[in-house]
Amino acid sequence: MTNTQVTLCQIDNYGPWTVTPEPRREADLQTLQSRLYADISQFVGNRDGYVFFTRFDNMIAVTNGLTFEDHALLQESVGNRYPVTLSLGVATGKTPVQALSDATTLVQDAGSAQDKNRRECLEGRVIDDEHRTDDDVQIAHFDVIDATGEYTDELNAFDTFIEIEQGYASLMRYMREAHDSLAFFVGGDNVIVVCPDLGEGEYEDAIYHVQEDVDVELQVGVGRGKSPHDAGIAAKHALEDCRADGTRVELGW
Amino acid sequence: MTNTQVTLCQIDNYGPWTVTPEPRREADLQTLQSRLYADISQFVGNRDGYVFFTRFDNMIAVTNGLTFEDHALLQESVGNRYPVTLSLGVATGKTPVQALSDATTLVQDAGSAQDKNRRECLEGRVIDDEHRTDDDVQIAHFDVIDATGEYTDELNAFDTFIEIEQGYASLMRYMREAHDSLAFFVGGDNVIVVCPDLGEGEYEDAIYHVQEDVDVELQVGVGRGKSPHDAGIAAKHALEDCRADGTRVELGW
Amino acid sequence: MTNTQVTLCQIDNYGPWTVTPEPRREADLQTLQSRLYADISQFVGNRDGYVFFTRFDNMIAVTNGLTFEDHALLQESVGNRYPVTLSLGVATGKTPVQALSDATTLVQDAGSAQDKNRRECLEGRVIDDEHRTDDDVQIAHFDVIDATGEYTDELNAFDTFIEIEQGYASLMRYMREAHDSLAFFVGGDNVIVVCPDLGEGEYEDAIYHVQEDVDVELQVGVGRGKSPHDAGIAAKHALEDCRADGTRVELGW
Amino acid sequence: MTNTQVTLCQIDNYGPWTVTPEPRREADLQTLQSRLYADISQFVGNRDGYVFFTRFDNMIAVTNGLTFEDHALLQESVGNRYPVTLSLGVATGKTPVQALSDATTLVQDAGSAQDKNRRECLEGRVIDDEHRTDDDVQIAHFDVIDATGEYTDELNAFDTFIEIEQGYASLMRYMREAHDSLAFFVGGDNVIVVCPDLGEGEYEDAIYHVQEDVDVELQVGVGRGKSPHDAGIAAKHALEDCRADGTRVELGW
Repeated sequence: MTNTQVTLCQIDNYGPWTVTPEPRREADLQTLQSRLYADISQFVGNRDGYVFFTRFDNMIAVTNGLTFEDHALLQESVGNRYPVTLSLGVATGKTPVQALSDATTLVQDAGSAQDKNRRECLEGRVIDDEHRTDDDVQIAHFDVIDATGEYTDELNAFDTFIEIEQGYASLMRYMREAHDSLAFFVGGDNVIVVCPDLGEGEYEDAIYHVQEDVDVELQVGVGRGKSPHDAGIAAKHALEDCRADGTRVELGW
Repeated sequence: MTNTQVTLCQIDNYGPWTVTPEPRREADLQTLQSRLYADISQFVGNRDGYVFFTRFDNMIAVTNGLTFEDHALLQESVGNRYPVTLSLGVATGKTPVQALSDATTLVQDAGSAQDKNRRECLEGRVIDDEHRTDDDVQIAHFDVIDATGEYTDELNAFDTFIEIEQGYASLMRYMREAHDSLAFFVGGDNVIVVCPDLGEGEYEDAIYHVQEDVDVELQVGVGRGKSPHDAGIAAKHALEDCRADGTRVELGW
Repeated sequence: MTNTQVTLCQIDNYGPWTVTPEPRREADLQTLQSRLYADISQFVGNRDGYVFFTRFDNMIAVTNGLTFEDHALLQESVGNRYPVTLSLGVATGKTPVQALSDATTLVQDAGSAQDKNRRECLEGRVIDDEHRTDDDVQIAHFDVIDATGEYTDELNAFDTFIEIEQGYASLMRYMREAHDSLAFFVGGDNVIVVCPDLGEGEYEDAIYHVQEDVDVELQVGVGRGKSPHDAGIAAKHALEDCRADGTRVELGW
Repeated sequence: MTNTQVTLCQIDNYGPWTVTPEPRREADLQTLQSRLYADISQFVGNRDGYVFFTRFDNMIAVTNGLTFEDHALLQESVGNRYPVTLSLGVATGKTPVQALSDATTLVQDAGSAQDKNRRECLEGRVIDDEHRTDDDVQIAHFDVIDATGEYTDELNAFDTFIEIEQGYASLMRYMREAHDSLAFFVGGDNVIVVCPDLGEGEYEDAIYHVQEDVDVELQVGVGRGKSPHDAGIAAKHALEDCRADGTRVELGW
């Protein structure tokens, strides 16, 4: 049974900061946001976690494997090197949405995202090492079948983008409502979904739903593991099986 | 009348590279993609252009102000510092979609995104300096009214994200179909749209459409300028007027 | 008694890479070198180690606290994100120079720095966790007394730089020859030295030597710890005592 | 005749910032310093200038080709993305040291490096575009003959480093005193020197001096150009001639 540890990373007072004393150059904001995300991706990823850029001022991470002290260090390091600071809430749950919900509440209880007095709050709990199991995390890695042939080499780059976004938006809502899962677009034609215990039938249903809803054809590789990296790399290999064998759903166990 | 110069930046052979010889760690791919985007944002932004991360392996930029030599230098610099290379297509048009379409065709004609022999193609034309005018670029900066109060401080972070994504997906399709415009989510609750010559009525219609379609309330500041930065900073200031005055549409001229 | 774990990080075949097929833009090489160093500093530093930029194509790190698997992960992550790869040699010794010497030999035995077939070698041994003690690392943090008043606000920036370099070169040779220590300039007017077990008298002698040799006045804070971070932060606090009390040598234990 | 434009980039109030409220993690300071330098290297380098890391809190750049507005933009962009700010002084002179001296005075006159009220000063003058010539900049690129065979593959990495540092310290002092030149170690076994009009004989003398002083054997390629990049890439090609032909001094004109 899955036991997902989710961390919400929220930049403190970001909205006001971006326009004080004057609106800042957009290109600089994009650079700052992207590099902050990249740093968090290295920190979390090097401990076998995954973090998703989400809205950039709010980033969602799956942090099975990171200790509470790791969270404190991440917060300290960002505070030393950026003109903004992070608040972090960590929680666990049988479903990813449950964990993310509790993590969000921890941060909201500490203060508004635009509360100029709320800085670097750090609340929550991690899974003790001795309670971690190889089933804690389930990751599904979806991509669009032959996106390059169907879209990238055929349509203009924005119309291709619209198709990918449609597929993502449809999958995202469905997986959230049907399965309390968290789906994230990660570039190209790829969507990574953090799931509870789901089986082949449920993934087939999801693919069918998206095809009917927005006419985008997906395939998926699924993996399980003690950490997001373990689950995710198994999912990537399963997805390679889809590509090689022409199947739509492959489970990595 | 607008005269938008658009550049498509496409990473060469990226899909295959990410899985050769084995699938690479997802956190490293996220870091690479984000930092490459951040670098392009600095290069383009420092010349008063804007670039949007789009799908990360395909990035769309508005490059009024960048010369053809600037494009060559960007390509060379990326080739010197990353394990991947970029192909670039530049074109101009009365509408942003027209320009983007032509830019895409230039790259597609050079070879498939997964053609292992296509590397660093550079094709197209820029607007000569003496033909540039203060009307060349129109930028609309939308955000969600009181996103912090309505969503961020109230819902869990993923449900807030779903609401923002819905608003974006609706606006993106509408602006593309009705006005040949290119809309990009840029973090937080912000969407920047690159438009042809549109007026107050058209922006009011867009806002009304999104409200009816997905029940997300937007406001917008619009700016015009010789460069994306000029147009964009005027749009940001106009958006501050929306916030201060409670209006839904503000034009910065 | 100190037990320093030292890692040599050497970029594979870098010299030839920088001029193939043509010499590359210097500014791009500087950017690549600095960002690679910064990434290694985050990776090593987040595990409480220290890495020094040294010659950029060869970087010396003190890695007490990093496991062999950590080294493999660092190597893999760099290989995923840069156009170059790293070879790593890890060794331990009673003196820092002894450890560094053995680490170097491990890399040299694997192949020349310009051997085009040597890629990503990883050799050596780390200190097992159960054998680590609070005395393993000794760090001395030197700086120039009132560099701002004496030099920065008075001389031109290059003549100030020459003075700092002279002080560094003198201290570096002395500490290497007298105490098998590794001294690194870390910016500003600061030099961090990795030492074996030394006492107040030895630090006084070092300061006297540099004053006589090149007429640069140093002060030093010294710390001990299980990791370079622990030892180093104690050294920084001790240095603050020098600044507050006007003393030349302060030991943090 | 050379006409070097030099910019001093000095971080405002950096010393106090690094220890307020407490000393900050050394690895984070190293990361911050290196990435700030890398960003300045991209900004300046993309405009065909060169910047050298020098002491990291004080960086010296040769900025022929950068306008005063470019300097203002660099300053603004750094202020938007870092927790520190830069003060900049720009000056020109027949010799590099003269220009650097005047640039330093401009910054010193605005306030101490540790004056908590001095922020983002920007003073000086650039060379007007119509007064720029192909002789403005002379760059000499030195390296150690067969450093890999003589040192890197033979000695331990720190003793190799000491040898390179000795060679650099000797060359740096000599070129400053004899020729008002600015010499910078740029990694590996490379030193780039910014010179006034010097000829073959003067470079031979410099090489002879270093050999006699510290027994390190150098070779050098020299280039001239309108910008540091033009002069520097010519110098790199000339250095390749040294390597190919076994000569000690090669002029790229």
